[in-house]
Amino acid sequence: MFPLFWIAPAGSFFALFFAFVLSRTTKRFDEGTDSMRQIAQAIREGARAYLKRQYRLVVIIFGIVFVLLLVLSLYKLLPTFVPFTFLTGGFFSALSGFIGMTQATNSSARTANAAQTSLNSALRVAFGAGGVMGFTVVGLSLFDLSAWMLILNWYYGSLPMQERLLVITQTLICYGMGASFQALFARVGGGIFTKAADVGADLVGKVEADIPEDDPRNPATIADNVGDNVGDVAGMGADLYESYVGSIVAAMALAFAAGFDIRGILLPMFLAATGVVASIIGTFLVRTREEATQRELLLAIRKGVWGAGIFMAGLSALLIYVLMPENFNFYWPILIGLACGMIIGFSTEFTTSDNYQPTRSIAQAAQTGPATVILEGLSVGMLSTIVPVIAVALAIIAGYYLPGGAQNPQYGLLGVAVAAVGMLSTLCITLATDAYGPVADNAGGSAEMAGLPKDVRKRTDALDAIGNTTAATGKGFAIGSAALTVMALIAAYRSQLLIFGMDLDLRVSNPQVIIGLFIGAMMPFAFCSLTIRAVSRAAGLIVLEVRRQFREIKGLLEGTARPDYAEAVNICTGAAQKEMVIPSLMAIIVPIVIGILLGPNGVVGLLVGALVAGFVVALMMANAGGAWDNAKKYIEKGELGGKGSPQHKAAVVGDTVGDPFKDTAGPSLNILIKLMSTVSIVFAGFILHFALFK
Amino acid sequence: MFPLFWIAPAGSFFALFFAFVLSRTTKRFDEGTDSMRQIAQAIREGARAYLKRQYRLVVIIFGIVFVLLLVLSLYKLLPTFVPFTFLTGGFFSALSGFIGMTQATNSSARTANAAQTSLNSALRVAFGAGGVMGFTVVGLSLFDLSAWMLILNWYYGSLPMQERLLVITQTLICYGMGASFQALFARVGGGIFTKAADVGADLVGKVEADIPEDDPRNPATIADNVGDNVGDVAGMGADLYESYVGSIVAAMALAFAAGFDIRGILLPMFLAATGVVASIIGTFLVRTREEATQRELLLAIRKGVWGAGIFMAGLSALLIYVLMPENFNFYWPILIGLACGMIIGFSTEFTTSDNYQPTRSIAQAAQTGPATVILEGLSVGMLSTIVPVIAVALAIIAGYYLPGGAQNPQYGLLGVAVAAVGMLSTLCITLATDAYGPVADNAGGSAEMAGLPKDVRKRTDALDAIGNTTAATGKGFAIGSAALTVMALIAAYRSQLLIFGMDLDLRVSNPQVIIGLFIGAMMPFAFCSLTIRAVSRAAGLIVLEVRRQFREIKGLLEGTARPDYAEAVNICTGAAQKEMVIPSLMAIIVPIVIGILLGPNGVVGLLVGALVAGFVVALMMANAGGAWDNAKKYIEKGELGGKGSPQHKAAVVGDTVGDPFKDTAGPSLNILIKLMSTVSIVFAGFILHFALFK
Repeated sequence: MFPLFWIAPAGSFFALFFAFVLSRTTKRFDEGTDSMRQIAQAIREGARAYLKRQYRLVVIIFGIVFVLLLVLSLYKLLPTFVPFTFLTGGFFSALSGFIGMTQATNSSARTANAAQTSLNSALRVAFGAGGVMGFTVVGLSLFDLSAWMLILNWYYGSLPMQERLLVITQTLICYGMGASFQALFARVGGGIFTKAADVGADLVGKVEADIPEDDPRNPATIADNVGDNVGDVAGMGADLYESYVGSIVAAMALAFAAGFDIRGILLPMFLAATGVVASIIGTFLVRTREEATQRELLLAIRKGVWGAGIFMAGLSALLIYVLMPENFNFYWPILIGLACGMIIGFSTEFTTSDNYQPTRSIAQAAQTGPATVILEGLSVGMLSTIVPVIAVALAIIAGYYLPGGAQNPQYGLLGVAVAAVGMLSTLCITLATDAYGPVADNAGGSAEMAGLPKDVRKRTDALDAIGNTTAATGKGFAIGSAALTVMALIAAYRSQLLIFGMDLDLRVSNPQVIIGLFIGAMMPFAFCSLTIRAVSRAAGLIVLEVRRQFREIKGLLEGTARPDYAEAVNICTGAAQKEMVIPSLMAIIVPIVIGILLGPNGVVGLLVGALVAGFVVALMMANAGGAWDNAKKYIEKGELGGKGSPQHKAAVVGDTVGDPFKDTAGPSLNILIKLMSTVSIVFAGFILHFALFK
Repeated sequence: MFPLFWIAPAGSFFALFFAFVLSRTTKRFDEGTDSMRQIAQAIREGARAYLKRQYRLVVIIFGIVFVLLLVLSLYKLLPTFVPFTFLTGGFFSALSGFIGMTQATNSSARTANAAQTSLNSALRVAFGAGGVMGFTVVGLSLFDLSAWMLILNWYYGSLPMQERLLVITQTLICYGMGASFQALFARVGGGIFTKAADVGADLVGKVEADIPEDDPRNPATIADNVGDNVGDVAGMGADLYESYVGSIVAAMALAFAAGFDIRGILLPMFLAATGVVASIIGTFLVRTREEATQRELLLAIRKGVWGAGIFMAGLSALLIYVLMPENFNFYWPILIGLACGMIIGFSTEFTTSDNYQPTRSIAQAAQTGPATVILEGLSVGMLSTIVPVIAVALAIIAGYYLPGGAQNPQYGLLGVAVAAVGMLSTLCITLATDAYGPVADNAGGSAEMAGLPKDVRKRTDALDAIGNTTAATGKGFAIGSAALTVMALIAAYRSQLLIFGMDLDLRVSNPQVIIGLFIGAMMPFAFCSLTIRAVSRAAGLIVLEVRRQFREIKGLLEGTARPDYAEAVNICTGAAQKEMVIPSLMAIIVPIVIGILLGPNGVVGLLVGALVAGFVVALMMANAGGAWDNAKKYIEKGELGGKGSPQHKAAVVGDTVGDPFKDTAGPSLNILIKLMSTVSIVFAGFILHFALFK
């Protein structure tokens, strides 16, 4: 193997080691009072129990798909190792989620406890927990990728270099499917769990029984906190594991297709390793004075993210200059990818933070009742798609033309893929800010349930409000990077078909393409409909259960008896398992059916349609949801009537509607479109064989 | 001129004559008590006043665009007559809306009065009023088109046949822009007016003051009824005038491009004339027994629409067989277009009628409060897009391949355009069912305000509930036909550019196309955001005004003093005028800017992106809105707690959110995408001249 190759495993090692260090540092903080420990333990147990059941179901489905892939590979419709990369992709994606979640559940009580001292120490604990997740995800993906590179290089060692690289990139490009598949289950199942619990708890607790959020008397409150961990942490870790790996392998395949040698093919992995270093530096920049304000906290986090970006810009310039000075113009897409991520992040922050007008306008709309809250929130969400769309459009143009796409379209496509890698290169730290959100949210729950003093809850609320914004930023980032990654995957699909000896007629005037576009544009809506309805349905079960407990357990509302938390967790678990299957399978079945009915041209139409519509819908949902949540928090701070006022009740309706938007449907969409793309790639040979139109 | 040409003006004459007869028949009914007459007069005055102000503003904007077009035509970047077709298109589109609205405002009191006798007589009056509008729209468009054919044929009489047909079709294809432009103002302005009044009236009246809908004590109630007429009638008439004309001229241009002679080029006009005859027959089928149930009423209407479709299927087979037996396979797209319209109609009915599960599920969700009503409604709306998308996809495939698109793509594109013409051929009657809705709605208002007996209101409510379904069906139909029309317009755009000597690279892998797709997919969201926010903002003004009147006018709530209705109408008028300008201009400016920045390939991407995303969003909005409205009506009938229960309050929130969905943003989207297409066509020469990428 090319000696510089070892940069990639080294990056993996650094990332995992740093995650370990962060985890040890967090452990040193105290979990607080006995009651806090007990609550944390209950949440940990609930989360583990949920994941166990989810993984059991996923293992069965993986088994079935594995056999299917094995058959395809025996018939030479797939490279030999694809069924196995499918398995490891799924495994490491699940492992990323599991580790992130374990860390998060270990950290929320500690964050609440640290909030007794100061906002800054609480931030450090919560952000550290997020960092564990960020570095683990990146470390594991680089590990898995490097391992497969070594295995494949050894196994195909007898082939000449070009053929060897072909089969290696072909195998790796299929690797994303396992990760996507697992990620979709994690996101959808976890998303349904978390929002069923949250919505159910709010509907009865806040609206009917008039008790505050996270009140220990509410039987769904532990389930709500479990949900934050299984949905927002485990689901997100699996999701971004997949984006990260997907962007790297797509870029590697396109580098091969563009005729680059091993240095070009390995460039995406080197960039990823460089990003680990930049992220570690960035992490050290996240600090602020002890009694910082909410605004200063946000600035501290931003300093870390932007700092990492700036270091990455410098380090990658050096890397490309040393590695392939003759192709230095591939540096520009990296820079553009980084900038695009920043722009999307800032635009999300503008939309969802109560420092700015959009979120405040939702809060003001609460003065005329819930209907105007909903309308204003939808309006804010829809308008917030403009800036990210333009940012991605600019990234595509610049990524395509700057490395010379006008002369050589292959270079242009590779440029877009490199922009995606650039955007995701500092994933360790962006994911840390994202995963920090649920930890802060849970810390608030812990403080409330354990009856800590009011000013502690106020601090955790401040952390949480920032968490909503960083989580929305993270989602915008995830969908932005997914957009670029999917473009690269589509290009990879095309070069895959070229290898099978088929050229495509991708003109939008081709009826196969246009029909694909129509159906593709419809997919995100159908998918969101199913997942949102799943949440309502599951939340309905929780509502009935909470009402039952209020009715049947004497002394519950007076605080003299304890609710049966475990039953609520059970109900959520069962509902999530049941409801996640159909939307997830849709992502696999539709591209295959469209492929058979409309041929590969239709598949590309489908993917592009789902990409452009899904991108916009996902942004809308994430931003509207975040803005609704923070508009409610803004009122809770005492603005516009404060807690308990009719305005607050109206804002709670917005928050409740936003919950499945931002944590179930919205963030699942980017996995949906990525999974559809990887499924199309994996089944390309199969589709070509059976398609009616060719 | 080809002698058979006179079929088209004859069709126009029949349609206008039949509209006149229907109008006379309606006039013979009595307007009812003095108080009903007064109310009807107030609504008429309000509606006229609004339209006057709207037309004044539109005239100014038309003047500016006219001068611009004149300059382009002087520089030979446009055919000479385009500025003038632009004016007549706008004029007749406005006239269609005006006549339809006049008829509607003349009929609602008569409908309420007829409801004192029986449901059937009320249906006949309301449906007759809708029919006036349907036949007027079709009659005027055929008149305008025929007149231009004659003028252009005379003016270019010295040119050889081929060149003459080229310049005629080129001129006509630009004709849609004037109609679209006027239609967008009418839909957006009227839509903002109607929903500002409706939402504002509901927010204060139903929710705060606890008085019923259409209660005469509510100062916004006249404005609400005016709104139904200016938005749902005048706006819709202008809209469908444009769809109708657009589909015909696009098909004519494509027939010329496909090398057809004058018979083929005139075929779309002949089909339109045939459709008039089929619609007249269908109208006579709409009748039922005197004391019909709500379900029987819906069946009666369906009998008319389906009957017209079946006659059209027969008559058009005859027409094609006689006119061009060698190309009989162009009959299949007509049939498919008709079928596609029926499928979309039935799917809409299934979603929005309380006879079926989707609407009832929303009503059931009201048991857990407003948030679940919103979530369930959105979910229902999103899921309802599947069937129409598949129907349109099938229409495209069949329309393309059945007339031989596989061998000759020009034939395929023409086939899709003919499918659009087929779908719209029975517009007279489908538009009648659509326009009937607001008349029934206003009749309910009239009955309530004039204090007619409860069972009259019950009958008008039954009419109104059907009206919600037929209106949603009409909107589904409008967007479905727009989808096919826009596809034809895009094909026409392409052949336009071929004439300018430019070929396109429309592959989705072309970055210009993909960026166009992204921005196009974002357009409907940005547009909806602006229009929804405009409604909220205007509704907010109404809320303040109603509250002010409740506070300042002594004895108002006790019913001893009269509110100041005119002021509410004024506020709505002013707000609608102000708010309609920016979203409308967006539709003109964006395609030109994208054309200059990304070239014609980017424009096609933009149009296709806006088409596929706009189609899905428009369906979602129309269906969710209709379903919310009928879920509320379902509860008002006494189900699930009935009027005044917390469930009812929750359902009212859904209805309020749905209002701008279904009557402002949703139905404007199809005009948005049509206007963007026609703007692109008209400015094609200009764009080619100035584009950065070519």
